[in-house]
Amino acid sequence: MLDYIRDGQAIYDRSFAIIRSEADLSRIPADLEKLAVRVAHACGMVDVIDDLAFSEGAGTAGRNALLNGAPILCDARMVAEGVTRARLPANNDVTCTLNDPSVPTLARDIGNTRSAAALELWRPYLPGAVVAFGNAPTALFHLLEMIDAGAPKPALILGFPVGFVGAMESKAALAENSRGIPYVVVHGRRGGSAMAAAAINALASEKE
Amino acid sequence: MLDYIRDGQAIYDRSFAIIRSEADLSRIPADLEKLAVRVAHACGMVDVIDDLAFSEGAGTAGRNALLNGAPILCDARMVAEGVTRARLPANNDVTCTLNDPSVPTLARDIGNTRSAAALELWRPYLPGAVVAFGNAPTALFHLLEMIDAGAPKPALILGFPVGFVGAMESKAALAENSRGIPYVVVHGRRGGSAMAAAAINALASEKE
Repeated sequence: MLDYIRDGQAIYDRSFAIIRSEADLSRIPADLEKLAVRVAHACGMVDVIDDLAFSEGAGTAGRNALLNGAPILCDARMVAEGVTRARLPANNDVTCTLNDPSVPTLARDIGNTRSAAALELWRPYLPGAVVAFGNAPTALFHLLEMIDAGAPKPALILGFPVGFVGAMESKAALAENSRGIPYVVVHGRRGGSAMAAAAINALASEKE
Repeated sequence: MLDYIRDGQAIYDRSFAIIRSEADLSRIPADLEKLAVRVAHACGMVDVIDDLAFSEGAGTAGRNALLNGAPILCDARMVAEGVTRARLPANNDVTCTLNDPSVPTLARDIGNTRSAAALELWRPYLPGAVVAFGNAPTALFHLLEMIDAGAPKPALILGFPVGFVGAMESKAALAENSRGIPYVVVHGRRGGSAMAAAAINALASEKE
């Protein structure tokens, strides 16, 4: 038998203790402390917390929205898979429209990626939703365009697009002008579906 | 309209060009070059390539296994979701047993996490499989224990567990003694389902 910890809760407890001992959380408000820790946990890097940016009260806004039954809209299937259903406070719907059969045609029609076009199908669910981007910069950019054109506003935008083209820029665009919408982003190239799902899981329940 | 690239293939092309211009790929053999680039793409960090370790011929072993119809076994649903089915050369099965109803009982029986216990259900599919870990150190540790106890060997182990407890150790254990099985790991705390899926997607098709 190899020597390692085999108890899931003990692994969580030890992991979060290591993160809190290593991370600089002084800048993080109380309503985002658990989110910051869980985002670091998802990627194995405490210094990702240094790149977090947020509007005041964003954590409370997201938590209240979920308590009140807000749907969760995800840009990628991996984000939706990462949401722990048992943590959701109101059996909230978790939706990803990327694989809808209408999306390829919509993408051609609007001249954008499939990830961006999939957001056109979010419109009925957008008011008061918790929206999570863990993959596509074009999707986050397109949400801002939709809102500028009059689409309903979500309760919270979790902006974690990842990569080398547009990720940094899409998150900077949101943080510079969030159109009055509460937001959390991780600036720079880093991000991903695991971080986005971790942010939702942190807002969904206080349990660690 | 905001100013950003809206063409998916153009975004891929530019992303991979940036990675190749910034990364040190001198240490990476030809059969893992695209895997290394795609793993960096998945996490937004070129320096993750410096932490890659691998056995000689691991890329070729994985590519041939997939061409010959090997099943793909994933420790987490997010890894399975990240595999691009259209890239698979033999309509390969993609399996994650974590949500099987027998797993909680199995976990109690073997005194390990659900992620580790789920591997007990892999046994019929293990011979010649491509096995991908994007989440749980306990699962990678448990695979090594199963093989030490006589379980069939997969064709390739992709080791990308992430986190603060056991991740580094499980990958080191594999790299120190892979039991003769070809492997690729990213050493250290970093890892995750996106990297694991990216590694599979790179081996599945030469297309970028």
